[in-house]
Amino acid sequence: MSYFTLTKETIPSYVLKTPVLQELLGEGKLDIQEVGDGNLNFVFIVRGPNQAVIIKQAVPYLRCVGESWPLSLDRMDFETKALVAFHQLVPKHVPKVYHQDANMRLVAMQYLGNHLILRKGMIGSTIYPHIAKHIAAFLAETLFKTSSFYLSSREKRELEQKFNTNHDLCKLTEDLIFTFPYFEQESNHKFQKMEQVAKVVRKDRAFKEKVLDLKYLFMNQKDALVHGDLHTGSIMVNKNETFVIDPEFAFFGPFGFDIGAFMGNLLLSSISHQVLDEKKEYSEWVLEAFQEFWVTFEKLFLEKLSSQKQSALITPSFFDAKSLQSYFRSTLRKILQQSIGFAGCKMARRILGLAGVADIRGIADEHLRFKAEERSLLLAVQLVKHHDTISSLNDVLEITRGGK
Amino acid sequence: MSYFTLTKETIPSYVLKTPVLQELLGEGKLDIQEVGDGNLNFVFIVRGPNQAVIIKQAVPYLRCVGESWPLSLDRMDFETKALVAFHQLVPKHVPKVYHQDANMRLVAMQYLGNHLILRKGMIGSTIYPHIAKHIAAFLAETLFKTSSFYLSSREKRELEQKFNTNHDLCKLTEDLIFTFPYFEQESNHKFQKMEQVAKVVRKDRAFKEKVLDLKYLFMNQKDALVHGDLHTGSIMVNKNETFVIDPEFAFFGPFGFDIGAFMGNLLLSSISHQVLDEKKEYSEWVLEAFQEFWVTFEKLFLEKLSSQKQSALITPSFFDAKSLQSYFRSTLRKILQQSIGFAGCKMARRILGLAGVADIRGIADEHLRFKAEERSLLLAVQLVKHHDTISSLNDVLEITRGGK
Repeated sequence: MSYFTLTKETIPSYVLKTPVLQELLGEGKLDIQEVGDGNLNFVFIVRGPNQAVIIKQAVPYLRCVGESWPLSLDRMDFETKALVAFHQLVPKHVPKVYHQDANMRLVAMQYLGNHLILRKGMIGSTIYPHIAKHIAAFLAETLFKTSSFYLSSREKRELEQKFNTNHDLCKLTEDLIFTFPYFEQESNHKFQKMEQVAKVVRKDRAFKEKVLDLKYLFMNQKDALVHGDLHTGSIMVNKNETFVIDPEFAFFGPFGFDIGAFMGNLLLSSISHQVLDEKKEYSEWVLEAFQEFWVTFEKLFLEKLSSQKQSALITPSFFDAKSLQSYFRSTLRKILQQSIGFAGCKMARRILGLAGVADIRGIADEHLRFKAEERSLLLAVQLVKHHDTISSLNDVLEITRGGK
Repeated sequence: MSYFTLTKETIPSYVLKTPVLQELLGEGKLDIQEVGDGNLNFVFIVRGPNQAVIIKQAVPYLRCVGESWPLSLDRMDFETKALVAFHQLVPKHVPKVYHQDANMRLVAMQYLGNHLILRKGMIGSTIYPHIAKHIAAFLAETLFKTSSFYLSSREKRELEQKFNTNHDLCKLTEDLIFTFPYFEQESNHKFQKMEQVAKVVRKDRAFKEKVLDLKYLFMNQKDALVHGDLHTGSIMVNKNETFVIDPEFAFFGPFGFDIGAFMGNLLLSSISHQVLDEKKEYSEWVLEAFQEFWVTFEKLFLEKLSSQKQSALITPSFFDAKSLQSYFRSTLRKILQQSIGFAGCKMARRILGLAGVADIRGIADEHLRFKAEERSLLLAVQLVKHHDTISSLNDVLEITRGGK
């Protein structure tokens, strides 16, 4: 079948021609709902007599801008490959793929019926008691198992080959996270009150040098297979379960990139609630989740490192146990530093750049929105500037609470 | 034609069946000489009535060990691809490829008739007035033109795809340069007098942590297409010309890897002459060449960085000219640090590991050899331990002259 853009009207005939979907959904009337609110794709919930499935299809342009910003359709291949790889590693936290159609650039996957996008839940002040631990578990497992700490160099390079040509979406990140937000550029956000603060930040040479360092890392440091876009809009949750979705940006990149994306989005949520809520409980809960996330990740990743006696990097006779532990701890410190740098970039671009977050841009009151934007951006700048001298989570918290 | 190992006896019939070689060499009797003294391949000079060509063929094992250490034949594909890529970038310093035969794992290339392997020339105390500048020019051009400072991310990743599966030879480097030399391992060199010094070094945790950091960089930092084995045995010279040969280890790796290989081998030569010669002129000349090499590389690389107004990394509006220069200078400092770390690893492995260098292992007098080995190893350890805090070439020279 050659490519065409599916609509609610054409999905039933597509299902009829696709035995695996036919069987999953059951014979009978389909209820179809378009739910995609992302920037890149169309997403449908298709309900049949038996059950529901998600059908996601890529369109050949950046959806949130329109047909004037063309984007390769290949991204759906990367998304599907990444979903399959991540599901294999962490089935508990990644939806199952039922069907993929390379020509149609679509994937059909597990429907998460009683789950909500984490960002929406957090905007609504819902407490998710497991979120920090679940995302830490997802990241510890996927980063470790696709790195030189676990795979042989041959296995790692072969996996790299499969994800190394995700050109368009890597370019989107290079431009929209690491480049455009930091100078006057037409794609950037048009502020009402923030222009003065933005101007100062865009002239801060020390800050921008570090942004460039982090962009360079993003482009050239191939630690592990990363999701590539792990903000709170790429996570579906309820009180008990957590699923990571939308890995179309997947590529081999630095350890800290996904960790930083998640951390940065938690900080934006925390600032949003700090500004909006009279009581500060939710904002404080988010900061606690932020800490719990890193503490859990660090613990899990260290356990995995220690349990792997032989890897591409480590040969048992090279180091005694004590030296190895010291080396691993320094590895974790470097991952934290990198993550905090990326967290800062992710936050800054959500304030300055094209794609904002509802937590902040959705604040109706102009004065409060300005306050949240300013606070987020100034924190982002501090995180980026100091990221490479951070030695522990306490340093991060000190910066976050305004100590630096 | 299916693969068989060529010999002096079978080359004439191979040439008869290969029009391009037939034409280059001319019709008539061939004079064939086996000249390979490398660790990996067979190399023949084939002289015909018209001219001579080099025929180089890979054999399916590590030649310097024997058939018990099998090695993939694919390496000849990587060597040929790299020769072609490097020749295209720097024709002045890389031999021309005339013919390649993928099945036979062989390449026929430009014969360098009045050139000598640089290591041999240096052992013989020959001064090569252009060597530092030539290798600096080769590296500045190849590293710059295959990096994110020049290529688009798409072009860079596509080039990476071609070199990313040089599995066997990367593994050889991981093992023989970054792993085996640093603990008791049967492939290591059997010393006469050095065992005690080696023992102390193999227990130096701070040193070995840095070795592991550098190994990690080698495995995961994909700055540019590197030669992968750029010691003084991979360079052919006369007083006027310089050619880089043998890039079968070519892969995408850190900027400092080739730079460090060349620097480390210069330092080994300098120490060899320091120990052997009554007058120290040659040893001093080598140190001057070492300095001239870095100063020239730094100058050329900075010029190239500055002349490229737009790249995958740099967008003109991002930075003013002054900020950009400051960023480039910090980039060069990081490249120097990394290079010095790799130089130290390369030196240490030549003392402790399987493959030595004739400059040091060829010293006949046991006492002098011990002195050279000890001096080289202790310098290597200092370079590795301090590499990441070096801020200029002066720091390196201070360490080299025993100041640290």
